[in-house]
Amino acid sequence: MLRRCLKIPTIRIEYPDWVASLVDWERRYASDEERMRLAITLSRENVVRRTGGPFGAAIFEMETGKLVAVGMNSVVRLNNCTLHGEMVAFMMAQARLGCFTLRSDTGPAHELVTSCEPCAMCLGATLWSGVRRVVCGAHRDDARRLNFEEGPVFPESHAYLEARGIEIVHGVLRAEANAVLELYRSGEGIIYNG
Amino acid sequence: MLRRCLKIPTIRIEYPDWVASLVDWERRYASDEERMRLAITLSRENVVRRTGGPFGAAIFEMETGKLVAVGMNSVVRLNNCTLHGEMVAFMMAQARLGCFTLRSDTGPAHELVTSCEPCAMCLGATLWSGVRRVVCGAHRDDARRLNFEEGPVFPESHAYLEARGIEIVHGVLRAEANAVLELYRSGEGIIYNG
Repeated sequence: MLRRCLKIPTIRIEYPDWVASLVDWERRYASDEERMRLAITLSRENVVRRTGGPFGAAIFEMETGKLVAVGMNSVVRLNNCTLHGEMVAFMMAQARLGCFTLRSDTGPAHELVTSCEPCAMCLGATLWSGVRRVVCGAHRDDARRLNFEEGPVFPESHAYLEARGIEIVHGVLRAEANAVLELYRSGEGIIYNG
Repeated sequence: MLRRCLKIPTIRIEYPDWVASLVDWERRYASDEERMRLAITLSRENVVRRTGGPFGAAIFEMETGKLVAVGMNSVVRLNNCTLHGEMVAFMMAQARLGCFTLRSDTGPAHELVTSCEPCAMCLGATLWSGVRRVVCGAHRDDARRLNFEEGPVFPESHAYLEARGIEIVHGVLRAEANAVLELYRSGEGIIYNG
């Protein structure tokens, strides 16, 4: 983790090992439900393998359903409060594309699929990421019941993104997504920043 | 950047080289103004060295003025939309402490000093970071004049953090901080996500 001197660390962000065997990168994910099922699978696996909180996300090409990147909550594993599932997915997608935005005039449009509605940080990052669409599973009230905070997110926050051309879809496979939150609670996982 | 196969990148986040010679890690930064001057120096150096946008930040121990980490906008340099100056500072501080939060019952309290008011993403991350205080230089209207968007930040957003015990101080050395924004504009730096 540390380079040159103790004051100047290098941050390394990597997936947990199970991603390599779990994720099918060649498949085309046709529908919102198929894409959400991957995000939920990631959230569940993160809990079962004890590598993080119950949140998974993925970035797809909207038209083709090609998978660009996945993400899973990595806050505790990597000692980094910013590594919510959505943030990991954005970073990994941009690393693959070699660009700081997923928006381009000529290339494919991208979307974020997330097992739970984004917190304030992730909603802000969604705007900077260049995705054109956000598909959400569990409702933020579902997360709040676990004492996971969402931060300063208001109805105007979603409207702000929508006014800038980002479509937001709520409640896709909400019950399945919520079941992973309940699984996490029953396993007494760490509720950080509760 | 890439490991094992193209689908699974590793993210590496490092400071630009000039940080090693610019930052005095042993000094104690006594006042808000001294701390802000460091954040502004980082923002200016980032523009002059052409390593990123005109935004700098630092994390201090509130009581002692000990410098824990610095950050500077690294979005374009590292192809990562999440790497605003504040985010880099949070990540680096947590890497140094080996913990996902800067808050502890027994250790020192920490504060974020940032050359410009945080955007929606950074404000959300501020809540998760564990800092107890935020000191801001330039106003977000100053950034907006450069067409830097701040995202869905409302008066309630700041109130939300304040209600959770985070003090927010505005306008410290605002003119000096704003001068760096103007320097960036005059140099025709990239206004990404404009």
